[in-house]
Amino acid sequence: MLFGAIEAGGTKFVCAIGDQEFNVIEKISIPTTTPSETMRDVFTFFDRFGEELKSIGIGSFGPIDVDQQSKTYGYITNTPKLAWQYFDFVGSVKKRYNIPVAWTTDVNASALGEAQLGVGEGKKTVAYFTIGTGIGGGVIQDKLIIEGITHPEMGHLLVRRHSDDKYEGNCPFHKDCLEGMACGPAIEQRLGMKGQEVPADDPFWEIEAYYIAQMIYNVTINFAPSVIALGGGVMKKDGMLKKVRNTFSKLLNDYRPIPDIEEYIVLPKLNDNAAIIGCFSLAEELITK
Amino acid sequence: MLFGAIEAGGTKFVCAIGDQEFNVIEKISIPTTTPSETMRDVFTFFDRFGEELKSIGIGSFGPIDVDQQSKTYGYITNTPKLAWQYFDFVGSVKKRYNIPVAWTTDVNASALGEAQLGVGEGKKTVAYFTIGTGIGGGVIQDKLIIEGITHPEMGHLLVRRHSDDKYEGNCPFHKDCLEGMACGPAIEQRLGMKGQEVPADDPFWEIEAYYIAQMIYNVTINFAPSVIALGGGVMKKDGMLKKVRNTFSKLLNDYRPIPDIEEYIVLPKLNDNAAIIGCFSLAEELITK
Repeated sequence: MLFGAIEAGGTKFVCAIGDQEFNVIEKISIPTTTPSETMRDVFTFFDRFGEELKSIGIGSFGPIDVDQQSKTYGYITNTPKLAWQYFDFVGSVKKRYNIPVAWTTDVNASALGEAQLGVGEGKKTVAYFTIGTGIGGGVIQDKLIIEGITHPEMGHLLVRRHSDDKYEGNCPFHKDCLEGMACGPAIEQRLGMKGQEVPADDPFWEIEAYYIAQMIYNVTINFAPSVIALGGGVMKKDGMLKKVRNTFSKLLNDYRPIPDIEEYIVLPKLNDNAAIIGCFSLAEELITK
Repeated sequence: MLFGAIEAGGTKFVCAIGDQEFNVIEKISIPTTTPSETMRDVFTFFDRFGEELKSIGIGSFGPIDVDQQSKTYGYITNTPKLAWQYFDFVGSVKKRYNIPVAWTTDVNASALGEAQLGVGEGKKTVAYFTIGTGIGGGVIQDKLIIEGITHPEMGHLLVRRHSDDKYEGNCPFHKDCLEGMACGPAIEQRLGMKGQEVPADDPFWEIEAYYIAQMIYNVTINFAPSVIALGGGVMKKDGMLKKVRNTFSKLLNDYRPIPDIEEYIVLPKLNDNAAIIGCFSLAEELITK
C-alpha cells in the first residue's frame, strides 16, 4: 500500500511516494509554471505506481478553499499567481486516479508532519510557522488541523510596531501587519539587501525578533501549544532563535506557565520533508478511517 | 438520567440539573465565599438527586489546570482569590459522588453551550468572548474545545493602542494588553465612572470598539470561525455591536471572505444559560462516549 504526497509551493511542486511508515520511497521536484504543464509532470510521476497508490494528500500554496460544503472546495482561489486562480486541484487529481484525495494548506501539512514525526511527536498541540517570502502558521491539536470556514492566516497578525522601526510595511491589505513588517521581501525593501546578506549582528535582527516574538505570544494565548516550530529562511540567521526566545519571554512576563523555553520554541526537525510527511498522514487517514 | 452543571464564577456559583435534552430542571445561585462554605451548599443541592445524577460538568473561573497528565489536574491554580488557590475542585466533587466529572473554564463552557444550542448550532467553528470585569474567550471546533497544555487566555492579546487613548492600562502582567485597556475596571479607572454610567454617545466607545475589533480580527485569522458571539456587560451598551462590526470591517479590509457581518459578529443567544448548557454537554459526553 502506497500513499502519494503533493507539496504544492509557489515556485516548485514536490511530489513523493511513501509507505505505511511514511518512509519517502521516491521524490521529485517540478517547477510551478501553469496548471496544465505542472500537473502533466505530476501525473507522469504518480502514474507509475498504478493500483498500489491508495490515496493522495495535497498541501497547497493559498489561498485555497477547504470548506467541504463549498462549490469550490479543493480549488486554489484568488491567488496572485493568475494561471492558478480557481484551479480545481482536488478535482483534477481525483479525475485522474479515482482515489481519495486530502486537501490542506502547505503550512498545515508541514505542521501536521512535525506533529506526527517531528518536534511534536507524542505532544498534544503543535504550532508550526514558516517565515520567509511570506509568513504562515498552522496548529495541530490531537492530530486535528485547526481550521474553520477557511484555513488560518496567522501571518497577518496586527503587530505592535518596534519603536526603532520606521518602515511602513508591504502588506497590500494591512501595510504593517506581521507579514508586512517581517517577511523576506519586507526585510529587503527596508534594508536594500536580502536578509541572507544582512550581517547577523545588525541591530535590525532585534526588530525582526520583536515581530516574531509577538506571533509566538499570540499563538501561546490562543492555543497553549506544547511546542512551536519555526521554519523558513529567516530562522536560519545566526542567533535568531535565541533573540526570539528572549524577546518572547519578556513579552510573556511569566504570565502563564510554558515548557522550558528551549523545548518550547524550536527549529523544525523534518526540514524539507515536513509537508510531505503531513500529506502522507492525511492520505493515510482517508484510507484507515 | 440527569446531568449536573456547575458554573463557578468569581462572585457566584450557579448549579443546575438538566435532562438529556439539556432542559434546565432546577437551578440555584450560591455566593462564592470559601471552598468549604460554597461547596457545602453545592453538595446540598446535588445530594437531592441521588442515583439519577449520572455525571457533572464544571466550568470554572481560572486559571485552572486542564492538563490530564498533571498532578494538579482539576485544580483552580494561582487565582488572586486566595481561599481558592490550589483547590482540588474535580477531586472534591468526585469524592462526594463517585461519578464522572468534566472540567473546563467558565468561558469555554459558555462557548460550548452557544456552539451546541445557541448562535453556533449546526456551525463548524464557534468563538465566544465575554467582555466585563475580565476579558476571556473560547473556541469550539466541531464540538471540540480548542486548548493545549492549558486553556486559552485570549483576553491578554497585545493590542495596538488607539491614537486618542492615553490610558496606561491596568493588566498586572502586560499593562496595556486587551484586558488591561478594555475590561470594565479599566474603563472605570480611565473615565472615573462605571461603564454603565458612561453615555452611549461618549467618544470613548469608539476606542473600546477599536480594541474589541482587534480581538475579533485576531480570532478570525487564527481560527476562521463561522460565528463570533460577544457576551458580557460592555456589549450591552447601546450601539456597541454596530461600532465593533464597523471597526472590524475596516481592520480586515476585505482581506479574506467572512460571512455576512450581521451573522458573523453577534450577541449570544443563550445568555445566562450558555455555560450551564455547555456543562451539561460535557457531562453527557462522559456518559455517552
